[in-house]
Amino acid sequence: MPSAPSSRPTKDHSKAIAELKAQFGDRLSTNLATRQQHAHTMTWLESQPADAVLVARDKQEVAQAVAICNTHNMPVIAFGIGSSLEGQLNAPYGGLCIDMSEMNEILQVNSEDLTVTVQPGVTREQLNHYLRDTGLFFPIDPGANATIGGMVATRASGTNAVRYGTMKDVVLALEVVTAEGKVIKTGSRAKKSAAGYDLTRLMIGSEGTLGVVTEITLKLFGITECIGSGICHFPTVEAACEATMMTIQMCLPIARIELLDTLQVKACNQYSNLTLKEMPTLFVEFHGSTAGVQEQAQIFNDIVEECGGSDFAWDSDEEARKKLWHARHNAYPASRALRPEAQALSTDACVPISRLAECVSETAKDIKEAGMIGPIVGHVGDGNFHVLLLVDTDNPDEVQTAEDLVGRLAKRAIDMDGTCTGEHGIGQGKRKYMAYEHGDAVGMMQAIKHALDPNNILNPGKIWP
Amino acid sequence: MPSAPSSRPTKDHSKAIAELKAQFGDRLSTNLATRQQHAHTMTWLESQPADAVLVARDKQEVAQAVAICNTHNMPVIAFGIGSSLEGQLNAPYGGLCIDMSEMNEILQVNSEDLTVTVQPGVTREQLNHYLRDTGLFFPIDPGANATIGGMVATRASGTNAVRYGTMKDVVLALEVVTAEGKVIKTGSRAKKSAAGYDLTRLMIGSEGTLGVVTEITLKLFGITECIGSGICHFPTVEAACEATMMTIQMCLPIARIELLDTLQVKACNQYSNLTLKEMPTLFVEFHGSTAGVQEQAQIFNDIVEECGGSDFAWDSDEEARKKLWHARHNAYPASRALRPEAQALSTDACVPISRLAECVSETAKDIKEAGMIGPIVGHVGDGNFHVLLLVDTDNPDEVQTAEDLVGRLAKRAIDMDGTCTGEHGIGQGKRKYMAYEHGDAVGMMQAIKHALDPNNILNPGKIWP
Repeated sequence: MPSAPSSRPTKDHSKAIAELKAQFGDRLSTNLATRQQHAHTMTWLESQPADAVLVARDKQEVAQAVAICNTHNMPVIAFGIGSSLEGQLNAPYGGLCIDMSEMNEILQVNSEDLTVTVQPGVTREQLNHYLRDTGLFFPIDPGANATIGGMVATRASGTNAVRYGTMKDVVLALEVVTAEGKVIKTGSRAKKSAAGYDLTRLMIGSEGTLGVVTEITLKLFGITECIGSGICHFPTVEAACEATMMTIQMCLPIARIELLDTLQVKACNQYSNLTLKEMPTLFVEFHGSTAGVQEQAQIFNDIVEECGGSDFAWDSDEEARKKLWHARHNAYPASRALRPEAQALSTDACVPISRLAECVSETAKDIKEAGMIGPIVGHVGDGNFHVLLLVDTDNPDEVQTAEDLVGRLAKRAIDMDGTCTGEHGIGQGKRKYMAYEHGDAVGMMQAIKHALDPNNILNPGKIWP
Repeated sequence: MPSAPSSRPTKDHSKAIAELKAQFGDRLSTNLATRQQHAHTMTWLESQPADAVLVARDKQEVAQAVAICNTHNMPVIAFGIGSSLEGQLNAPYGGLCIDMSEMNEILQVNSEDLTVTVQPGVTREQLNHYLRDTGLFFPIDPGANATIGGMVATRASGTNAVRYGTMKDVVLALEVVTAEGKVIKTGSRAKKSAAGYDLTRLMIGSEGTLGVVTEITLKLFGITECIGSGICHFPTVEAACEATMMTIQMCLPIARIELLDTLQVKACNQYSNLTLKEMPTLFVEFHGSTAGVQEQAQIFNDIVEECGGSDFAWDSDEEARKKLWHARHNAYPASRALRPEAQALSTDACVPISRLAECVSETAKDIKEAGMIGPIVGHVGDGNFHVLLLVDTDNPDEVQTAEDLVGRLAKRAIDMDGTCTGEHGIGQGKRKYMAYEHGDAVGMMQAIKHALDPNNILNPGKIWP
């Protein structure tokens, strides 16, 4: 297996563990199964369990645990639900895994202000279920039923981001435990502020390397009167990207615009027993008033026709919508079923939308030439797309081929004035692209890391070597 | 005069100045008039000129100048157009003022991606004038014709922020000269990224204390088919705030919603020869398709009626719109004309919208009880409002009264889970509220400041003592 640092740490954390044990008693687990369970994530990278796991009950416990770890230079890895993709939850240098799943209270809904404050273990589905009678919803949907804390850590986004933004746009304030075990607040519930440095945005996407998030205040949005969903097909990926670009350029407030390439559509047909045309396909969704959705759909229809697309059909019925999105939501297992014995290597990149068609086409060609199977799906309204490479990880040549493909995609996206990851984060898997993407800005980032975590206890080996 | 540190620095910067002189020749000015001109801003705080002024031509010059200053511990203050309000451009410890006004090129418009890259000296009016034939516009409008660099520094927002966000939302990437004189890039033109720390947002709002911005890549927006503007009156400020709150809660995509209190309306009538009803008034604007604007206006009309407002009238004609907003845009000079011999102390605060009515009312009462004149205007859709206190700055008692009022407003807003400034920034004027607002997070901010600017040369005395 590649990429992740393969050497297990030799550092002895027994003093820290003894102190943690004295503090938390039997609730500190050093059981191997528990540790392995907390290192298992959706990544293809080698699993590296922590030395101990604590299921935290409240912020004070998190602060106590972090303070003990800081004293003894023991790494701290915060765990949500284990849905990260780049090895963010591995413990390459050992350490304490703080499981946040029981810190899952929804603390305060302020429907007048469209805000909610939650603990980090709340999942996005739990939150939306809780909100179901309020007329409000939390729009960020990265696919997995991730925890809000995890979504903060990786700056998650997903299908609705084209309209509602990413985690950086919907988080108002955080409560964070610092490396020395202090509890701080990074903001207020005011919609905007010009008072000092934006610690909220600094924490979002820092993958647990700058602090441990213990509370999150989020913006909510009203569920619109009407939601319309549709599907359409294109002769080529380029034509589908062209239609996407025109949609964005016209500032149509589209809520979702998702590309599936032909292989992905085939996979979905097989997996979900569907009869979609096996062509590059866009799934779209419109949010608005009834008249507004009608208007958006009409404009979109014109764009589809202009770009040589066909069969645009949409519906505002909830059942029809659910059926439609079912296929999209199952894209991941559907792809895996193309080669069930293989491991899935999910990677993503993001480019300016004018370069999207080119980036997707070159990537598809590259995958084909490498002899790999790799369906492409994308949140194309943001210029963001995913490749799911199906890799026999027992075959080192194949692993190398896959890694090289990911490397070329990262470089391709960066060269197009884009980024090596739009939403999965850096973790362990993409550390090697940081310097190429950020140049000397890496020095500034590392200076911040060192200032806020001088003992390098916060999720070491992630983002940075 | 209050607030600003009144002691002039004793530090001798002659060595740095000699080196700068050797590098830049006569373009380095130590002329008193030039220095004073660059310390003059819209603040009421005492003017504190730098030791020298350099009108920079390009990023290399900025980098060279900063590197020289860093070697000699000489402060660096970047200057845009001088429209900041909290003493951000003062030089309490002397130093070099780098004037960015000649770095005012619009470098690249990518209309396909809705992005533009500009130099920091470009003003927002210059940018929108340049874009006039593209169908695109840059929405952030803080009132003054500020430079984009200055707007980055203070995390500016203004009337359109309720729909289009603040500078933190519309900046994609920055080029920044660090304290040691390196040029770094904080991001790409990709719409989103999960690759490392969000240096872009960290720089935005840092008021020149973490780096000097030399290039900015911004999001642009399409000018909608229809723009409708309207006005309506309310019996009380509370009723106007109530209508604002309902508008936001219904997720109406209103583009502007501005409150003027009775005194402000009176001032506008006098100044602009208008006959507006002298009652709390909302100015609103809707952006969308023709049908969409119609629909928004209808919904807003229902809200106005429900809240006891009256005379809602709107128009999509451009001339009518310009006339309407003329009054709002002249609110500042109109207010000053209420007491022409006085100095204007402009302050702002921002609270969750559910607390807005209470915060505005208590503030109005407080102003009245203090015997001051202080009209209130607000970007109320964001819970943000301004008070313009008219102060005889030769009268120490009056100055004290005004300062106490500002202090109580800051505390009131913070106590309501808001912030002591929504858009003006901290500068020198609001440093004393940082600890009350941020608590222990101040330590984290200062650690970042120290890490990125160990010699404290970047705009010292702003945000921090």
